[in-house]
Amino acid sequence: MSKIAIIGSGLIGQGWAAVFAQAEFEVAMYDVSPEAAGRALSAMETRIADLVEFDLVPASDAVQVLQRITVAATLDDALDGAIYVQENGPEDVHVKRQITRSLDDITAKYVPIGSSTSGITGSRYCEHVPGRHRCLVVHPINPPHLIPAVEIVPTPWTDKNIVKAVQDLMIRCRRETILLNEEIDGFIVNRLQGALLAEAFKLIGSGIVSATDLDKAVCDGLGLRWSFMGPMQTIHLNAPGGVVDYVVRYGKMYRDFKIGYDEDIDWGHIAQEKLEAELTQRTPLDQISEAQVERDRRLMALLRHKKLNATNA
Amino acid sequence: MSKIAIIGSGLIGQGWAAVFAQAEFEVAMYDVSPEAAGRALSAMETRIADLVEFDLVPASDAVQVLQRITVAATLDDALDGAIYVQENGPEDVHVKRQITRSLDDITAKYVPIGSSTSGITGSRYCEHVPGRHRCLVVHPINPPHLIPAVEIVPTPWTDKNIVKAVQDLMIRCRRETILLNEEIDGFIVNRLQGALLAEAFKLIGSGIVSATDLDKAVCDGLGLRWSFMGPMQTIHLNAPGGVVDYVVRYGKMYRDFKIGYDEDIDWGHIAQEKLEAELTQRTPLDQISEAQVERDRRLMALLRHKKLNATNA
Repeated sequence: MSKIAIIGSGLIGQGWAAVFAQAEFEVAMYDVSPEAAGRALSAMETRIADLVEFDLVPASDAVQVLQRITVAATLDDALDGAIYVQENGPEDVHVKRQITRSLDDITAKYVPIGSSTSGITGSRYCEHVPGRHRCLVVHPINPPHLIPAVEIVPTPWTDKNIVKAVQDLMIRCRRETILLNEEIDGFIVNRLQGALLAEAFKLIGSGIVSATDLDKAVCDGLGLRWSFMGPMQTIHLNAPGGVVDYVVRYGKMYRDFKIGYDEDIDWGHIAQEKLEAELTQRTPLDQISEAQVERDRRLMALLRHKKLNATNA
Repeated sequence: MSKIAIIGSGLIGQGWAAVFAQAEFEVAMYDVSPEAAGRALSAMETRIADLVEFDLVPASDAVQVLQRITVAATLDDALDGAIYVQENGPEDVHVKRQITRSLDDITAKYVPIGSSTSGITGSRYCEHVPGRHRCLVVHPINPPHLIPAVEIVPTPWTDKNIVKAVQDLMIRCRRETILLNEEIDGFIVNRLQGALLAEAFKLIGSGIVSATDLDKAVCDGLGLRWSFMGPMQTIHLNAPGGVVDYVVRYGKMYRDFKIGYDEDIDWGHIAQEKLEAELTQRTPLDQISEAQVERDRRLMALLRHKKLNATNA
């Protein structure tokens, strides 16, 4: 049984512990505050019990999953023999630099050191760390044990083999990996959320719509499909000729909104050069109508799910 | 049993027919092509059967629901006695003007005339229509019988009582209404989608991420919560002090992305002046941690649903 070290035992650290323990890793949690680590360990019981209640962890596995998670008395103990380190320190670049340097000092060579930071790109905290080739951001979405998406963001110095190893590890832990080819502030998830929020604040701020009604536009509208199909696959299925056809039909409409549609970003060109190959590999043009039927069936299954859930709430 | 007229029997018209018939309205569909209307009527059988399969229409109601939908031989027949008209003509402003004028000529006084247009604001097609006070946009999201959100967009001339009547009608039809206080291109749903797409095209176009991975950021990340909770409620629950606290903590981060975050739009001010009152009415600050627990339970229920659904696919 391989071991993973989790540094910092707050909500993010606890979520990661549940993720790794479910994938049969031995998990050593370390926290500068032993009291915090102790509390985290008891909190894990509730977390795993919740997962069992919702059939996300088999009841027969619960005890074993919990037993795999332990608190390490020292940082050295936590890191000793670990094949991967997940750091969940505070969002402060100075602290991050210090922690990463310590981790790099102690951790065995070739072991990747991932940070859960959502706001600090790796190059800002690990440039002067000797082992910067094995440092990278591995950003979960809160709460990590419930949201499968994980962003993997290499720094300019991160070794390709390290990136590959971390990606494989995350896939083994049933995470859905989003690999960035270069660093960018906010990564993907928060940038997409930020783009939507910016427009939302504008619309509510100008008095056009209430927050309650804007929320419905998402949770009773856009968000339904987006819970099982991303935005690019969504538009690929929303025109008979796929994504290129979609941009021909609706590109001008979006451009005329003058939202974030920069004139220099040519949607038609991107659709042809980047999107079509990738999206038609997933859904060839002659299978679009079939995929639309399947999408509508998923939508109906989701509506039934929401109906049942609302009744029970 | 009150009657509703549906003008245009394409996919949108058919979706509306299913919505109104489920709410026990008599539905008269009219199409300039009698063949199209005939085909639409047979297509309705499949639609209703699908809804029965997913427990969205009780099996015992299916025959009745279908029987409520008929094809009218003439426009006059369709409109005769209707308490509401839903127009689903082509997205062409000239055609829209013509159709609206005809509808206004024939339809009984005080009956609201809603248009399904997604791209043409009402003032562009009904300014010179004598009964413009009863015209407005009532925009469904495709497919209308599966997505509950409906945008209600009055023109500058639409009577307040007409708006109220249409909103009540939509609520009776179990639609989730999004009321706009003034016209804006793209309304709310397509503007929010456009904001997110603009950023997505930028990120994919610049080679930072693949379309497949970007899709995961939504369907395995942001979109999970958004399928049962809108973006404003989401951020309200993502800081201990609610939405105002959220903007204090993360506003600068979003502004630094320089996406659609216009310097003139002051998130902090909007959070204090508009959002806090509305959002704390739904979730008071002292109930935020309780609401977080409930949110995580909904999330786990959704994950179980997705797991079961993927197995069956």
